[in-house]
Amino acid sequence: MRHIYLVGIGTGNPEHLTVQAINTLNKADVIFIPSKGVAKAELADVRKDICQRYVTNKAIRFVDYAVPVRQTADRSYVQSVDDWHAEISSTYERLFQEHISEDGSAAFLVWGDPSLYDSTIRIIERVKARDRVALGYSVVPGITSIQALTASHRIPLNLVGKPVQITTGRRLAESFPGMVETAVVMLDGEQAFSKIDDPDAYIYWGAYLGTEDEITIAGRLADVSDRIMATRAEARARHGWIMDIYLLRKGSDFDDQA
Amino acid sequence: MRHIYLVGIGTGNPEHLTVQAINTLNKADVIFIPSKGVAKAELADVRKDICQRYVTNKAIRFVDYAVPVRQTADRSYVQSVDDWHAEISSTYERLFQEHISEDGSAAFLVWGDPSLYDSTIRIIERVKARDRVALGYSVVPGITSIQALTASHRIPLNLVGKPVQITTGRRLAESFPGMVETAVVMLDGEQAFSKIDDPDAYIYWGAYLGTEDEITIAGRLADVSDRIMATRAEARARHGWIMDIYLLRKGSDFDDQA
Ligand SMILES: C[S@@+](CC[C@H](N)C(=O)[O-])C[C@H]1O[C@@H](n2cnc3c(N)ncnc32)[C@H](O)[C@@H]1O
Ligand SMILES: C[S@@+](CC[C@H](N)C(=O)[O-])C[C@H]1O[C@@H](n2cnc3c(N)ncnc32)[C@H](O)[C@@H]1O
Repeated sequence: MRHIYLVGIGTGNPEHLTVQAINTLNKADVIFIPSKGVAKAELADVRKDICQRYVTNKAIRFVDYAVPVRQTADRSYVQSVDDWHAEISSTYERLFQEHISEDGSAAFLVWGDPSLYDSTIRIIERVKARDRVALGYSVVPGITSIQALTASHRIPLNLVGKPVQITTGRRLAESFPGMVETAVVMLDGEQAFSKIDDPDAYIYWGAYLGTEDEITIAGRLADVSDRIMATRAEARARHGWIMDIYLLRKGSDFDDQA
Repeated sequence: MRHIYLVGIGTGNPEHLTVQAINTLNKADVIFIPSKGVAKAELADVRKDICQRYVTNKAIRFVDYAVPVRQTADRSYVQSVDDWHAEISSTYERLFQEHISEDGSAAFLVWGDPSLYDSTIRIIERVKARDRVALGYSVVPGITSIQALTASHRIPLNLVGKPVQITTGRRLAESFPGMVETAVVMLDGEQAFSKIDDPDAYIYWGAYLGTEDEITIAGRLADVSDRIMATRAEARARHGWIMDIYLLRKGSDFDDQA
């Protein structure tokens, strides 16, 4: 049976790699590298840098592949994601048949941690379900952008004993402010923080975390919101893309338990 | 100025250490090891194992210290935690004065990631606020028990585009089932899952994750709840302690967005 390793690589700093990730990469026969179709050249560079630094087993073959692009025309969001996952599954299936021997193994380098807003696990499950290649797989955890954010700001994720909501820009309003004291927002294309009007909210924002281009801004939301908007727009224009994440907080340790 | 490194070490598997964590440990002058007063001998062993494997700089001094025990008699929960943090701060302050030169550095090995249900950052901030030793510090992210859990079960943390609540046993009922499709529960001394009566809920449970004693159970909550209770009780009795975490899920990818 072929075995696939989904290896979390952290969020831009090659030193985020764990010993387990390094050892796993070095025991694979093949490492698949998404090269064509990757808009963000810097992200492809991080993957190359990681392989150059840590893949010491000279027998390993590197196989480039083109990542299918999601089509959004004439279909709903769900249909669009479903079609896209189906197409990636076909790509993977072909890759496995062509490049891995029947009892061989291969690794994918997954950004951050494979469990967090990433569909590689789902897609491997699809390939398994199609049942044209017999497949085992395992997941190696990686540092997420959430931990990169809290480490750079040197803040606890949660208030003492209190919950945290991880959410997206689109869903933020459902939980913060109101339901939780801490919300972490990812995948936010609409700067949902800028629509929050709460004098007690704080924000801890970070972009390109872990990379040489890392930017962080923190403060009372009302005070720094405009500065984050401007910094983000400028950085995005300069790089041609941006990856950012932020934590919103209201309240403090122990304030509800006197 | 003295510099303190708070280094995330992952959750039991020494191979969770990142390259950044290893490099950071090796540049400290001193590594502080909580030895006396640590009930869970296995956890002390993980720290020792990590130092033996990865601390190659022979100049580094190891300093053991006793962790103060939290006193609960005659005080509220908040008072108890506050007193405890104050006492640990005094301990740290003494350690820094006695064992780190004025421009030297030291590292603490923090279980999992320093941001997640851990107070080391708060305590260092307290020592800084007391202002008797001038101090800088930085945080090195680590693999959390959440990622150890999802990796072992090979599951995504979130449903596609949907939020996740990280919470405690005590607060679980506020969010699941009802408010979120996914809840991750930590620090649960009361097996809050066993009080949930929902035929559609699934649970992914794990104990001693990352260690040789790792146990995982997954299934429909109604089907496996009793088995988890029994397994947990048995393991806890055998080890004398337990660390467990679980993910509860209801619903599936895309079910609300047709
Ligand atoms: C498709 S998700 C992948 C998340 C990844 N699996 C992880 O563990 O962080 C992409 C989102 O993660 C966040 N992100 C990932 N890397 C980041 C970085 N280096 N700096 C800031 N945000 C990042 C952003 O919110 C981005 O929209
Ligand atoms: C004080 S918190 C520390 C969490 C840690 N900082 C982290 O990043 O995972 C302790 C809780 O974390 C969870 N935990 C930590 N290590 C674990 C492990 N190896 N297996 C299962 N649960 C673990 C349990 O829920 C436990 O009650």
